[in-house]
Amino acid sequence: MGCPVGIGPEIILKYLHSTAAKPAAPPVIIGDAAVLAATGTALGLSLPLHLWHPGEPTVPDRLNLLGVSHLDPTTLIPGRPTQETGTAMAVAIDTGISLCLAGHLAALVTCPISKAALNLAGYRFPGHTEMLAARTGAKQVAMMLAGDRLRVVLATIHCPFREVASLLNQPALVDLVRLTDRALRTDFGLRAPRIGVAGLNPHGGEDAMFGREEIDIIAPAVQQCRELGLDISGPHPPDTIFYQAAAGRFDVVVCMYHDQGLIPFKLLHFADGVNVTLGLPIVRTSVDHGTAYDIAGRGSADFRSLQSAVTCAVRCAANRHGGNRSGTEPTQL
Amino acid sequence: MGCPVGIGPEIILKYLHSTAAKPAAPPVIIGDAAVLAATGTALGLSLPLHLWHPGEPTVPDRLNLLGVSHLDPTTLIPGRPTQETGTAMAVAIDTGISLCLAGHLAALVTCPISKAALNLAGYRFPGHTEMLAARTGAKQVAMMLAGDRLRVVLATIHCPFREVASLLNQPALVDLVRLTDRALRTDFGLRAPRIGVAGLNPHGGEDAMFGREEIDIIAPAVQQCRELGLDISGPHPPDTIFYQAAAGRFDVVVCMYHDQGLIPFKLLHFADGVNVTLGLPIVRTSVDHGTAYDIAGRGSADFRSLQSAVTCAVRCAANRHGGNRSGTEPTQL
Repeated sequence: MGCPVGIGPEIILKYLHSTAAKPAAPPVIIGDAAVLAATGTALGLSLPLHLWHPGEPTVPDRLNLLGVSHLDPTTLIPGRPTQETGTAMAVAIDTGISLCLAGHLAALVTCPISKAALNLAGYRFPGHTEMLAARTGAKQVAMMLAGDRLRVVLATIHCPFREVASLLNQPALVDLVRLTDRALRTDFGLRAPRIGVAGLNPHGGEDAMFGREEIDIIAPAVQQCRELGLDISGPHPPDTIFYQAAAGRFDVVVCMYHDQGLIPFKLLHFADGVNVTLGLPIVRTSVDHGTAYDIAGRGSADFRSLQSAVTCAVRCAANRHGGNRSGTEPTQL
Repeated sequence: MGCPVGIGPEIILKYLHSTAAKPAAPPVIIGDAAVLAATGTALGLSLPLHLWHPGEPTVPDRLNLLGVSHLDPTTLIPGRPTQETGTAMAVAIDTGISLCLAGHLAALVTCPISKAALNLAGYRFPGHTEMLAARTGAKQVAMMLAGDRLRVVLATIHCPFREVASLLNQPALVDLVRLTDRALRTDFGLRAPRIGVAGLNPHGGEDAMFGREEIDIIAPAVQQCRELGLDISGPHPPDTIFYQAAAGRFDVVVCMYHDQGLIPFKLLHFADGVNVTLGLPIVRTSVDHGTAYDIAGRGSADFRSLQSAVTCAVRCAANRHGGNRSGTEPTQL
């Protein structure tokens, strides 16, 4: 459910009420019954509750809930997380992880949380992804932003712009590419993912006129991956690779820094993008927006990213588990 | 005409033959008669020649040519510039500048040249823009990329990625914004341009967590411009400002580095983008692609950027000269 005082409860209810294509089995909402009920009343959206328990099937046309907290909505202020809401939120995440690891749930889809709320509750993680990696013992994780026109993975994420160039290195790039290739095969149903790698400098450095990272770091990493048998090319000029990827030439673009990937991704998928964590033992997707505390409680939040995140999680889970267990044809995303 | 062995001659002939909307008066082509004739033969496109001279009107349904060189096409190899082709190209540019400064032509539209070809001929400029600035005595110039969905200007251009942060400074940003504002009023017919300024760091630095340039440089520059009466806002998170601009919220986005502007611009305007030089005493637009030596002579070049560049130049000239001379309503681009 994400942060109880963010837009999570609202987008969940809007999504469950929408007429958009839904998965065959409705999802389990792990969160707080009273908060969801109060949000439903405020939005004029009602859906009968079904209290789900691990091991049971979910029931269509119900809000299948696993309640893990007992908040009092009358004491909550939209956009103002407390220690209590932070704890409720963290417990919901831990419950989801636990049930996915045990095989009771096929995938985890997360609504937004804030680092501040998590820290208020005593959980010392910068965000979901770090908490998920720690709880599941994942050695290497990566963030993919996925949409139907473009997928990107990021070599560096939340660091100052001026530190990006110094953080890039060949072994980490090779690891990222291999993790990405594996995920596209296992979870996204691609038999031979076509990977495009962006350069760092204008025009890809133009023969070292505008920088050497392409020659010293990126090209050797691409070459190493090619020798491993991957379908990879680059470094490509950053200002044309995304157009080519959106036109169908690449299944994913490996980006050197946050905005290199996020600028084109949000331009194409502002409302319907999905954040996928690669490298976990469980399938995990997330909305690609934040808690939106500034509009929490106003009823104006857009649920499309959640819808995309659920759709993506269902397909990834079907590919990963189906592919392993029954050898069925993977569903290409 | 640009480089005689690049795609310039080809896109000119394709453009003149296209049925797309044309300016009321056909443009003057400043270049080489024999090269254009040979290109026309190779492409199966013929258009009667009219030798234009300064002071005369141009003639519809003719290739209105001002010949400034006498190359022998049988000695030229597509994609291989020589001292002779470099000189022809540079003389064509100087002729265009001269006739624009004298008022015989209303605007200069340039086809691509290469720095290598220019240097072969003894002209020591990195490109068109620097040559134009030197020849016209312009003190400050800037590059704008313009399309019907997005316009961007760049605070830094062709420099290594790792030097960008150190090159940014408040006075240069303020100068860039003022130049941009002036050009949007004078040439683009906007009465009160809405200027959005992008940050440098992920999420715009998020309160200095991921970098301080927003706080130390960009925000003070925005504030200074606001005090000058400009309609300006920012710094905005780089990964959302382009979506907002394309949705109509800003008339231009001020970008901190080459790919911050070029990635979203090329995603939206890959084939029809226009490069506009701000700050010159003449109106100058250009295609936003290079000489494309790799496909020169093959007949596969796309003329749409040239078409957009001519359309943009005609409107800018009408706004700039019309606004000054007759006080007519500007044509909004």
